[in-house]
Amino acid sequence: MLSGERFQAVYILTGSEEEALAKARDICLEQTVELPGELIPAGTIRDSVVGRLESFEPHGDRFRAVVSYAAETAANELTQLLNVLYGNISLKPGHRLERMVLPPSMLGRYRGPRFGISGLRERLGVERRPLLFTALKPMGLSARELAEMAYQFALGGIDIIKDDHGITDQCFAPFEERVRLCAEAVSRANRLMGRRSIYVANITSSPRKVFERAALAASAGAGGFLLAPGLAGIDALREIADDDSLALPIFSHPAFQGSFVTSRDDGISHYALYGQLSRLAGADAVIYPNFGGRFSFSREECESIAAGTSVEMGAIKPIFPCPAGGMSLDRVPELLEVYGPDVIFLIGGGLFKHGPDLVENSRYFREMVERFAGGKIPNGES
Amino acid sequence: MLSGERFQAVYILTGSEEEALAKARDICLEQTVELPGELIPAGTIRDSVVGRLESFEPHGDRFRAVVSYAAETAANELTQLLNVLYGNISLKPGHRLERMVLPPSMLGRYRGPRFGISGLRERLGVERRPLLFTALKPMGLSARELAEMAYQFALGGIDIIKDDHGITDQCFAPFEERVRLCAEAVSRANRLMGRRSIYVANITSSPRKVFERAALAASAGAGGFLLAPGLAGIDALREIADDDSLALPIFSHPAFQGSFVTSRDDGISHYALYGQLSRLAGADAVIYPNFGGRFSFSREECESIAAGTSVEMGAIKPIFPCPAGGMSLDRVPELLEVYGPDVIFLIGGGLFKHGPDLVENSRYFREMVERFAGGKIPNGES
Repeated sequence: MLSGERFQAVYILTGSEEEALAKARDICLEQTVELPGELIPAGTIRDSVVGRLESFEPHGDRFRAVVSYAAETAANELTQLLNVLYGNISLKPGHRLERMVLPPSMLGRYRGPRFGISGLRERLGVERRPLLFTALKPMGLSARELAEMAYQFALGGIDIIKDDHGITDQCFAPFEERVRLCAEAVSRANRLMGRRSIYVANITSSPRKVFERAALAASAGAGGFLLAPGLAGIDALREIADDDSLALPIFSHPAFQGSFVTSRDDGISHYALYGQLSRLAGADAVIYPNFGGRFSFSREECESIAAGTSVEMGAIKPIFPCPAGGMSLDRVPELLEVYGPDVIFLIGGGLFKHGPDLVENSRYFREMVERFAGGKIPNGES
Repeated sequence: MLSGERFQAVYILTGSEEEALAKARDICLEQTVELPGELIPAGTIRDSVVGRLESFEPHGDRFRAVVSYAAETAANELTQLLNVLYGNISLKPGHRLERMVLPPSMLGRYRGPRFGISGLRERLGVERRPLLFTALKPMGLSARELAEMAYQFALGGIDIIKDDHGITDQCFAPFEERVRLCAEAVSRANRLMGRRSIYVANITSSPRKVFERAALAASAGAGGFLLAPGLAGIDALREIADDDSLALPIFSHPAFQGSFVTSRDDGISHYALYGQLSRLAGADAVIYPNFGGRFSFSREECESIAAGTSVEMGAIKPIFPCPAGGMSLDRVPELLEVYGPDVIFLIGGGLFKHGPDLVENSRYFREMVERFAGGKIPNGES
């Protein structure tokens, strides 16, 4: 009855060797049959449906367990895959999901990002250098004021201009009006400068509204979607990415996902959450707080996210890491060394802080990136 | 332009007094305008849109800060309310959301649970005693086998019989077939016994599929929905609850939400997450791992959840706490003392473990609850 295909989850477990081994064995039951061992029916269920402990070894001061699960347990659903990987054991301390390994048959069920690195570069007409990304803020400005700001950023050469993730459909700047005005403003600047910058609309909302907002944004001329899977559900990301009637790049925002990563011994690794899962769900770029900014991710954690965005995953395209959060312009050279050219620099407050003129600040940001990334200026300046 | 209405969030913060105060001040910016103080436009934005630190005081070895936000920042959206309460600061260690306080104008925007405690009691015909709840498992059984099990539970007098939360649409027991057979089986037992037990279908899935499955389950005769908001998104719960074409009780499952509560210093309190937020979103009953079982919630944490399910929240109905997870039959008297009669006992494995005959085990469970809860047998036994 079963295909024999299995996927693997790597867990890091706390406790003594005996305790960690007990945790590993418990995972095999808890994540599948949810019954004590002696009550599990013999045959397929006991042999194949129950998780299988494939390896167990020390890992620094903790232990590393690899558990495999029958592909059928995940029912070809992303929500159920997450449930098998980390549903109930999220409720038990000392279990961290480190990574997942899906067989080709399961990867083949996911379309993944529609654009990925190469598709987004092509769309923006930027061949090699890092992409420049900023946010319209603060909440409280009118749609017209945000659109004027978008215009200035686009004039100054920012490639991607998004709504701040806290700007949704407030009375200050209602969704439809804002999206229309901002998309028009960026398009006006593009015509003037001969560029292909995009305005990215924040569509994070309820399961029903997220599709309405995506369709509205696409028809109003937005060039991409911002979505926080922690708020809207990660499968909302996948369904938007898979919808051929929408077909715009998606930028994943980490709001409300922090509790998965802030504890060393619980939750999900940066690599698996921001790297593997965002990508499997179809984000073309994943935003996360960069090291050395106002958040607390370490350099190693950020590098692991970047690794997850590009590790081999069958036909699923590599995507852009977007380090963000308290970044400043003077860190561009350092970050180029860490991430290489396939990165999107998301600078919000830092771009406002540089000086009073947003167009000038944007130009300075772009020049800095072009200079340090090798000087090639492939789009629009010919 | 603004109504002047504000909602409050209570945060518990780590660090020295100076550090915790800096965190509290940072929250006011991070959760709203996301700009450094000196860049915030004067006027409404600085005066009202920015969060306001209302109080700050020691709280054991940590600090307690109350921050208020303009109602308009939450845009009448549950996703955006969560974002203001805990979006970006989820990514910063040492911030725990303890509770929220919404003004009547905001509470009035939420319909909350359709049934709540009184509505669910009425529907099941059980006036006073705790309700009995169990799960169909393990994953790997066929739809027919699960339906036979549902029949036995219903014969034995279990009020609510749900899919195990890991059973979704696997090939072993596809959703549509399973829901039809299980609903029929429970209905057959009801006719025989003159009872009103319900079968609760697990509809957890993607934003689009969750509505399809809910409609399918309702038309197949299911008596309720099981939904894991950690997987499907909490606003899926609200939209299902608000949909008059569905109109069945909703049981919220905690899978994949554990990382919010496992760390003492990060995340969201049990009270706010399982109590306040589940209820605001419209769950009629909230499942969580009971103390003393195979999970690690403490008695105090469980009591705080129960408090959150019944605290005054305007017109939003109180809901049932459903302690679960490794509960055994012999704990019924103890748990009645902790929770009182307005509780649903969810016993899964413990009901299988008691003996080989599920009908007998169910009867024993029911007798135990009736005896200790005062002996009243109001439904179906007349």
